[in-house]
Amino acid sequence: MPDFAIGVDVGGTNLRVAAIDANGEILERIRLTTEVGAGRQAVLDEMCAAVLGLRHRLSATRLVGIGFGVPGIIYMGEGKIRESPNLPDWNDYPIRDEIEQRLGTRVILENDANAAALGEKWMGLGREVDSLAMLTLGTGVGGGIVINGRIWHGMLGMAGELGHITVKPDGPPCGCGNCGCLEAMASATAIVRMARQAIEQGRSPALAQAARTLAEITSEVVCQKAVEGDPVACQIFVAAGEALGIALADLVNIFNFPLYVITGGVVDAWDLFAPAMLEMVERRSFVYRAGGARIAPSKLGNEAGLYGAAYLPFQVRAALI
Amino acid sequence: MPDFAIGVDVGGTNLRVAAIDANGEILERIRLTTEVGAGRQAVLDEMCAAVLGLRHRLSATRLVGIGFGVPGIIYMGEGKIRESPNLPDWNDYPIRDEIEQRLGTRVILENDANAAALGEKWMGLGREVDSLAMLTLGTGVGGGIVINGRIWHGMLGMAGELGHITVKPDGPPCGCGNCGCLEAMASATAIVRMARQAIEQGRSPALAQAARTLAEITSEVVCQKAVEGDPVACQIFVAAGEALGIALADLVNIFNFPLYVITGGVVDAWDLFAPAMLEMVERRSFVYRAGGARIAPSKLGNEAGLYGAAYLPFQVRAALI
Repeated sequence: MPDFAIGVDVGGTNLRVAAIDANGEILERIRLTTEVGAGRQAVLDEMCAAVLGLRHRLSATRLVGIGFGVPGIIYMGEGKIRESPNLPDWNDYPIRDEIEQRLGTRVILENDANAAALGEKWMGLGREVDSLAMLTLGTGVGGGIVINGRIWHGMLGMAGELGHITVKPDGPPCGCGNCGCLEAMASATAIVRMARQAIEQGRSPALAQAARTLAEITSEVVCQKAVEGDPVACQIFVAAGEALGIALADLVNIFNFPLYVITGGVVDAWDLFAPAMLEMVERRSFVYRAGGARIAPSKLGNEAGLYGAAYLPFQVRAALI
Repeated sequence: MPDFAIGVDVGGTNLRVAAIDANGEILERIRLTTEVGAGRQAVLDEMCAAVLGLRHRLSATRLVGIGFGVPGIIYMGEGKIRESPNLPDWNDYPIRDEIEQRLGTRVILENDANAAALGEKWMGLGREVDSLAMLTLGTGVGGGIVINGRIWHGMLGMAGELGHITVKPDGPPCGCGNCGCLEAMASATAIVRMARQAIEQGRSPALAQAARTLAEITSEVVCQKAVEGDPVACQIFVAAGEALGIALADLVNIFNFPLYVITGGVVDAWDLFAPAMLEMVERRSFVYRAGGARIAPSKLGNEAGLYGAAYLPFQVRAALI
């Protein structure tokens, strides 16, 4: 049995843990039931118990290392989460030290969107390329950049904030303080905001009815109404697609990468937003029109981050050899 | 006397040639009088004569190589200029082969904005950093990206087209087919366009008078009127600065580089556009607000491309050793 690494993906709502070997084969996968909302201690308890269990069961093989993908901005040097909208009680907490102490071994911390980009490079659509950009369309819009096989961190580890590319200078406000960020136009949150506006303005009886019936309007509900043919719901995804297209055109003009991958829950609505997105990229990027760039939904889907987290220790080992 | 390289910078209107040693000392500089508008053969004749003369006079030392910075998109593999707005009769011409044949030695071809970014990294503001982005504000807006000390070319050599970042989706048309590109908002051409519009709309008596007196309105004239206090001319530079600020905020969010350098003729108006630009970056990029990024005018000015062209052979040699 070959060497293996353990990857942990701490999502906004889900926790994934897996032991993965150097060929990208999943040796064992654990689904954790604790929600991230249960708080830091509960999450750490269950996560570390799962990792220790995996390590024990696979003790006949060699553990190369443990990688954690966590949402938020990471102080790479200090091993802290600087700021995480989805994990407020983890902010400025020395998470890496805590995990290392509990597990008795070194771990690698990484931003979850960066880990997803690396995972897609390793075992997903990116296997044949050296460089790619990835957009994660979820509650927010995350981004990850892989250049020559490695995550691009930038000076402070804050590179790849692709959700905060300005796509509409006078657009809706974003949590980051800017207006018209991609995140404010194409995240699940933005889709719900546009749906609520349409309901308030009486523009979509279908969405209004859904709002009366259901506990809450989600991006999945808006997607469902669009699939059923509601023109306003369709238009919401077209608007999101156009915003994505502007950001992608920028990325193509800047990087001239061979691959741009889109993942996250909103990707389920690919057929609703992708035509407007691709038309926008075609129109706004002569570099794209020169050919060779592929824009596609993730192959690994919501497991990309898990693969990327597990790949980190292999990459560190390769750099040391 | 140390080894030296010859750098050639083929600008839109000027030709610069210099012999530069490995420490960045200019051993000899030649100013050519032939304008690029005189056509390909005239330029090649004079340029190659200058290079041969330099090589002859410095024959006691070792020539490491010759680098050419040329405007336009370069097919790196084939050594052709794919498309150059300023050198139409050079399009699709096997320029590298022609020069190599005339000089009897290998040469390195590079896009002029990329060469400028590399030159600024080598001997300008970028000496203390590994990575930077550079914007060249001239007739168009060029861009260059240096990552870990090397020009980032992308898949087809078309990376770094920073002038075609969309800063205003419904903005004025750009030559590239897009609308609201940075180039359509902050190039010298864009500044002149805004001035002409103001004149046509009767909004600026000062600019209108300048137009009657002078043969043509240039960005320098608009700058002059702004310095003299014309509010409309001032507003034109504020608009250009805001457009630059949006593009720079995107770049900071994407790269988290320590340095962003601005060069080109429009930089003479720094005091007129920089405050609006920096305010916009501050507002639109939380990565910028996290600190550490410097946005500054080039140290090497219009010689950055000459330095970068000369540095290319040194870089190739270093990679081979």
